[in-house]
Amino acid sequence: MSETRSVAQVYHVELGPRSYDIHIEPGCLDDLGQAMGKLFASPTRCMVISNVTIAPLYMQRLRDSLESAGWHVSECILADGERYKTIETLGFIMDALMDAKLSRNEPVIALGGGVVGDMTGFAASCYRRGIPFIQVPTTVLAQVDSSVGGKTAINHPHGKNMIGAFYQPKLVWVDSMVLNTLEPREVKAGIAEAVKYGLIRDAVFFDWMNSNMAAAIDLDADVLSKIIHTSCRHKAEVVMADETEQGLRALLNLGHTFGHAIESMTHYSTYLHGEAVAMGTLMAARLSEQLGFAEPGIESQIRVCYEAAGLPVDVPAFHADAWLDAMGHDKKNVGSRIRYILLRNIGEAFLAENVAPDAIRQLIDSYQSVH
Amino acid sequence: MSETRSVAQVYHVELGPRSYDIHIEPGCLDDLGQAMGKLFASPTRCMVISNVTIAPLYMQRLRDSLESAGWHVSECILADGERYKTIETLGFIMDALMDAKLSRNEPVIALGGGVVGDMTGFAASCYRRGIPFIQVPTTVLAQVDSSVGGKTAINHPHGKNMIGAFYQPKLVWVDSMVLNTLEPREVKAGIAEAVKYGLIRDAVFFDWMNSNMAAAIDLDADVLSKIIHTSCRHKAEVVMADETEQGLRALLNLGHTFGHAIESMTHYSTYLHGEAVAMGTLMAARLSEQLGFAEPGIESQIRVCYEAAGLPVDVPAFHADAWLDAMGHDKKNVGSRIRYILLRNIGEAFLAENVAPDAIRQLIDSYQSVH
Repeated sequence: MSETRSVAQVYHVELGPRSYDIHIEPGCLDDLGQAMGKLFASPTRCMVISNVTIAPLYMQRLRDSLESAGWHVSECILADGERYKTIETLGFIMDALMDAKLSRNEPVIALGGGVVGDMTGFAASCYRRGIPFIQVPTTVLAQVDSSVGGKTAINHPHGKNMIGAFYQPKLVWVDSMVLNTLEPREVKAGIAEAVKYGLIRDAVFFDWMNSNMAAAIDLDADVLSKIIHTSCRHKAEVVMADETEQGLRALLNLGHTFGHAIESMTHYSTYLHGEAVAMGTLMAARLSEQLGFAEPGIESQIRVCYEAAGLPVDVPAFHADAWLDAMGHDKKNVGSRIRYILLRNIGEAFLAENVAPDAIRQLIDSYQSVH
Repeated sequence: MSETRSVAQVYHVELGPRSYDIHIEPGCLDDLGQAMGKLFASPTRCMVISNVTIAPLYMQRLRDSLESAGWHVSECILADGERYKTIETLGFIMDALMDAKLSRNEPVIALGGGVVGDMTGFAASCYRRGIPFIQVPTTVLAQVDSSVGGKTAINHPHGKNMIGAFYQPKLVWVDSMVLNTLEPREVKAGIAEAVKYGLIRDAVFFDWMNSNMAAAIDLDADVLSKIIHTSCRHKAEVVMADETEQGLRALLNLGHTFGHAIESMTHYSTYLHGEAVAMGTLMAARLSEQLGFAEPGIESQIRVCYEAAGLPVDVPAFHADAWLDAMGHDKKNVGSRIRYILLRNIGEAFLAENVAPDAIRQLIDSYQSVH
């Protein structure tokens, strides 16, 4: 184990009464029980929510850590995948919380990737009008992005993350060693969200990612450590500046307007979220070029990066109407304003709310003619 | 129309960025569209959520008011009754919001009683992680209690209001004249929640209610006006002091621990919420006497008041185990703490967290031996 991996680092997310720490330390999964002593007066009941893929790998270790610290642990195991991020699964979690009779001060712990974290956070926000929750992210995507910042949600059949809450965790507990069991495809999808910080606000990090991509997808400890630390620092800074996405935080949605449409049109079962975001980011880059905001060449620079990461770069073919509908464009045009995040440069993004549907049609057509 | 009814009065609920007004004025239903000009930069889309009983009576007037002010109005009409306050109905509202393509800044308006207000508020809290909402309460219960304070929720089959959020409205718009079409039974149930303020913190108001009960259930304008104003003032004061129920606000749950159990055991279809709260309050009073916190006679004083209001006072017969289970007592006794609100006197309530299950059994038995 290298020097870098053995050091614990803590980023503090300062949000007044909703403040919390992001604790990053290889191997720390076994120490959560002990750490919870700082957050709770005494151990009582808690529930770990995970999924059928992660639970067999890490539930027992987490249980051991919690039980040695005196916690009475219940479990709730979900199916694996974005397509289960539904109101039905939310109901399933609520049933489990009711059965376990968790009271208002007893925490739930999300052990899993973005889907488990988003659903656990939303369930925690509304069970008894809010109980504490802790994020233990087990995917690259969750460790570099979704576990920090309190965006929780489930999907609606017609739109991703349409039902949710801004609800901050009490602690984010990041053990990069659990990534060693992750499918390579999941690793790559997570790397797309890390690249995003480079594209939005850190050109130097984007260049560094390009130079270290092979090591990154190989889970080289030092490279991975730098990716997680840099990403968590950026995410924490953005969330502290704009917790409920009134402005700055919206930039983190780069690639997401198109990406969510891709996920929705393919029923959340073809692409991983990070893969859809990668393709969506290429579309946002091309749109930025088409509209004259960015110099030609930005899209191709990003494409090279994603190809090196082994991410899909061929935007799926759907009719322009399907895209516009999936992105929530209102045919009646009653106050319809879709938010696109566009690029001026690598490292410089901005929010555009007045992109004409015709510009989107032209963008979509540019793909249809290629494929 | 008497002098009292024609005067508008506004109570301000000061909660920092979540502050809002309670506007009380007979006939004001027709003025909401105009009033919304103060809250929104320009009229866009909105959705009115109501139920099959209220919509035929008041939807058109509200629509007219909104449309004259330039709003584009969608409707979502729910079934009527506490037993529809479910996750399924929440899904139905979400479908309607998605179909109407409401954006993050466009409001929903709850036109109805407590069930419509609770569900609309919760839907508003989680649709796109929160959109503005406005309360237009149409029952006594909603006007004196549930429309103020931001407690929103749906029921779980095993517990009332178990899934929800603290989410404040942007405005509470109270027109007492809409109460003229209310079923007498609904009027009486609402009066039980008004009596509650007297029992908890205003003995003078309790005495005044006793002296004016006949006029109150007759909807005498002056008496009704005083009831609404006094109740809203008390509710606003309590909510400002303790928005998320860390202490003081819990006292407003007088009668609710037992009342919710009654509603749950009868599947939300036998009693109105206010009726269950009345019976629950009698139980809390008797328990207060049994435990020696209150002098004998308090229960009977309250019973006389409820009888004058035509409220049910005969606690339904269920086995003590069913009561304890419905109230969430954990048989394993792992950190189980049920909160009971008890009385020392008329006008003086307090929170008791360490009531032994045996005391509850004894209380339940005292009813079984009577019936």
